Amino acid sequence: MSTTGAAPGLSKAFYAIIAGVGGGTGRAVALRFARTYPVALLARGEASYADVVAEITRNGGEAVGVRADVSDEKSLAAALEVVKGKFQGKGLAVGVFNVSSPVSIKPFLETKLKDLDQSLAANARGLYNFAHATLPSLVESVSANPPYPPTLLVTGATAALRGSAGFGVFAAGKFAVRALSQSLAREFGPQGVHVAHVVVDGVIEGPRTKGYIVEGVEDGKLNPAAIAESYWHLHTQHRSAFTHELDLRPYAEKF
Amino acid sequence: MSTTGAAPGLSKAFYAIIAGVGGGTGRAVALRFARTYPVALLARGEASYADVVAEITRNGGEAVGVRADVSDEKSLAAALEVVKGKFQGKGLAVGVFNVSSPVSIKPFLETKLKDLDQSLAANARGLYNFAHATLPSLVESVSANPPYPPTLLVTGATAALRGSAGFGVFAAGKFAVRALSQSLAREFGPQGVHVAHVVVDGVIEGPRTKGYIVEGVEDGKLNPAAIAESYWHLHTQHRSAFTHELDLRPYAEKF
Amino acid sequence: MSTTGAAPGLSKAFYAIIAGVGGGTGRAVALRFARTYPVALLARGEASYADVVAEITRNGGEAVGVRADVSDEKSLAAALEVVKGKFQGKGLAVGVFNVSSPVSIKPFLETKLKDLDQSLAANARGLYNFAHATLPSLVESVSANPPYPPTLLVTGATAALRGSAGFGVFAAGKFAVRALSQSLAREFGPQGVHVAHVVVDGVIEGPRTKGYIVEGVEDGKLNPAAIAESYWHLHTQHRSAFTHELDLRPYAEKF
Amino acid sequence: MSTTGAAPGLSKAFYAIIAGVGGGTGRAVALRFARTYPVALLARGEASYADVVAEITRNGGEAVGVRADVSDEKSLAAALEVVKGKFQGKGLAVGVFNVSSPVSIKPFLETKLKDLDQSLAANARGLYNFAHATLPSLVESVSANPPYPPTLLVTGATAALRGSAGFGVFAAGKFAVRALSQSLAREFGPQGVHVAHVVVDGVIEGPRTKGYIVEGVEDGKLNPAAIAESYWHLHTQHRSAFTHELDLRPYAEKF
Repeated sequence: MSTTGAAPGLSKAFYAIIAGVGGGTGRAVALRFARTYPVALLARGEASYADVVAEITRNGGEAVGVRADVSDEKSLAAALEVVKGKFQGKGLAVGVFNVSSPVSIKPFLETKLKDLDQSLAANARGLYNFAHATLPSLVESVSANPPYPPTLLVTGATAALRGSAGFGVFAAGKFAVRALSQSLAREFGPQGVHVAHVVVDGVIEGPRTKGYIVEGVEDGKLNPAAIAESYWHLHTQHRSAFTHELDLRPYAEKF
Repeated sequence: MSTTGAAPGLSKAFYAIIAGVGGGTGRAVALRFARTYPVALLARGEASYADVVAEITRNGGEAVGVRADVSDEKSLAAALEVVKGKFQGKGLAVGVFNVSSPVSIKPFLETKLKDLDQSLAANARGLYNFAHATLPSLVESVSANPPYPPTLLVTGATAALRGSAGFGVFAAGKFAVRALSQSLAREFGPQGVHVAHVVVDGVIEGPRTKGYIVEGVEDGKLNPAAIAESYWHLHTQHRSAFTHELDLRPYAEKF
Repeated sequence: MSTTGAAPGLSKAFYAIIAGVGGGTGRAVALRFARTYPVALLARGEASYADVVAEITRNGGEAVGVRADVSDEKSLAAALEVVKGKFQGKGLAVGVFNVSSPVSIKPFLETKLKDLDQSLAANARGLYNFAHATLPSLVESVSANPPYPPTLLVTGATAALRGSAGFGVFAAGKFAVRALSQSLAREFGPQGVHVAHVVVDGVIEGPRTKGYIVEGVEDGKLNPAAIAESYWHLHTQHRSAFTHELDLRPYAEKF
Repeated sequence: MSTTGAAPGLSKAFYAIIAGVGGGTGRAVALRFARTYPVALLARGEASYADVVAEITRNGGEAVGVRADVSDEKSLAAALEVVKGKFQGKGLAVGVFNVSSPVSIKPFLETKLKDLDQSLAANARGLYNFAHATLPSLVESVSANPPYPPTLLVTGATAALRGSAGFGVFAAGKFAVRALSQSLAREFGPQGVHVAHVVVDGVIEGPRTKGYIVEGVEDGKLNPAAIAESYWHLHTQHRSAFTHELDLRPYAEKF
């Protein structure tokens, strides 16, 4: 295993799975990893991944999109069957958990129990299911001579570190995701699988945030391609120097 | 409102609710708060509170026990109706959330989704429901001249701060509880309600832990009466100097 | 050793030392501890402690003030000789380190190395010297049947947790103080000495802050007597349930 | 400014300074940055950098070594004059602060004030001086069309996050470094300079640690070239997605 970080050419023996490709981050991460691996994209609706699959294919990469609700064990299992059929004989190199619940900011007494349940389902159950389904394959890949240590990457948020007023329901899900990520990092690191939690802090550039001007400056929003570079770097880290958590925020962000 | 911390005599105008009185902490906290307030004790089974109610009554205090599953909105609402009937005309001075799921330490791939669901239900949904049901009364008490600022106290654990190997499922629930506690502290503090999260780190003395010798020393286990003193102190803090989080651990504990 | 938190009467066999009594906190802590112990007050100038000594004496307590610069080993040693002469035969029950450097907020490039040196001297060297000089006596008191576990209390600040823009020099000193406090808590806890770090977050009420209105509310500033109650509570904690860090902030404080 | 992370060829218009090249990390970071920039290496003794300068030159890079004690303002200023003379007309792209004091683990009462002073001098004063001397140049480079955002990288340690028993003096210096790094990140980020703190947790591979076997496994020690890859990644991050802190630890490390 090299420590140089130089990307090898397209690896046909391994593939990557990205769960949650609706937003800007998922798409950018898929495009970045598709430069090296065939990629499977999971989302609840085909509209979320169809364009990304097409774009990767146009670029000469290999991609498959499958509908899945990762908060539902059976839905996820069925989707992964499709993926395994498609990528038969290949090992899993990377799993990216990029699923989230909508950010909701609301006075606590105006929230409903079902808001909490949704946050916990999308975040905590989602990651639980995704990790449960992908870690056995990632562990298996450790001894299959992969280009880089098999990796599970988890998208987190500032709300994973801090429960602000009006953010309780959202933060509960994000804190739970961080708890799971830390436990998995400590349990699977010694087995050779790299688990990392990325705290994305700020507004991400994308169609939905086009109108926002953050801190009144250019590049005040996180560029998804820039986020994806750090995900790729995490994946390529040598096993003697794994990062378990890093933050990503625009230079102009107050924090 | 005094800043002296001197306890007033038995306050007949206000009462306290403690959810989760099965373990050593719940009982000790109930006894401590019963020195000043009538107390309502919630637990899933009568066996958990019957002795404590009897002991408080023997000591000249006032107590009522009600069966409730706080992870279930309806069960909790029904129990609180009974409590309000019993303590009619009184204001709520304190709510203590001391419910937990069993600590389970297990390799991640041997856990089941229902283990996660149980941890999230007991901890995150439990606190959500309890806070939702008690905060309106606590806010109301702010302007009713209470002896101390109305208070919501939450029992946490080291697993609220750190996801250790094998602890993912347990930590997910405890992290979520901390997220909610922080959000509530920041939202309800400015309204005059004190919300605090207590990180209890160590083995608690009690019937189930009688045989354990911790660090080979006397007082190596947390004394529940000592825990209760710090809960009482938190309740009596002046609103100009609220604590939002503290840790409690035996002097001999490695941390 | 009791777990009830009930204060014993004036203890003639033990005394307390408070370093840094110029501000509101030091005075209030001195008054609070003087209800139980004879107290020694250290400050750089007599004007800082003269009134407090007089007030304690008027209240029937016992106090001595001594000039000392705790950042200077020799100055501190000389002062402690005076204190030991005055309180001969008594054991040390409590040391409170309440010294600080002035808060300075300045663009980094406008600061001077001597600003950093001052911050490190007052905070890090100050606590180092104070801890070095008092811990042997505190350890000795463990076996001398003290009313509560011998205690070293350290006043910290939000800048101990977070380096904000313009606060680097100030935060360097406060972070260093927290580092020392944590190390001492872990080393001396198992020997029976309680070391705790208090994060005081907000403006403290006092002559210098009379004009400030914080968050537009009454009690928006920390009441020094309220702070002192929490210091006293920390001192009285049973050794099976020591707190190593707590925060104190006004109910209306944004954080 | 690109977000692709692809390294440009050797940049003749900018240079990098690395302070502290005695250990494995400094050398590896120097070699890595020398693939793109001319580099200046600072150390207290020529022996620390002579071989690295030779190795870079052999590889076709450009390097200069200068003796400097960064804890001493004047020594550092003199060294930087030499560097500026050598690299006249170039802008500063990167400063790496990799200076440390020796790790010392000792019972607190066996340490001396001068141990604390050494730790604070090497770490806190060292970073203060280095940042003070390099930040004006880094800010200047922001508008000089640099290949990547001008960057100040700071090597930290686990002792920057946690004060363990026996580590107080060492941790005080490391906490102070983290305090300064955070403040500088928040102050200079909005000006376009990227400041990041790297928590290196574990034993680093090198001549001095040859005999150590960590956790009984291959790659149980941090590979300096792997550390250097993450430093390089931090430097290349797009300004819309800066990381301010990351940890690096061997896969087998308990944490």
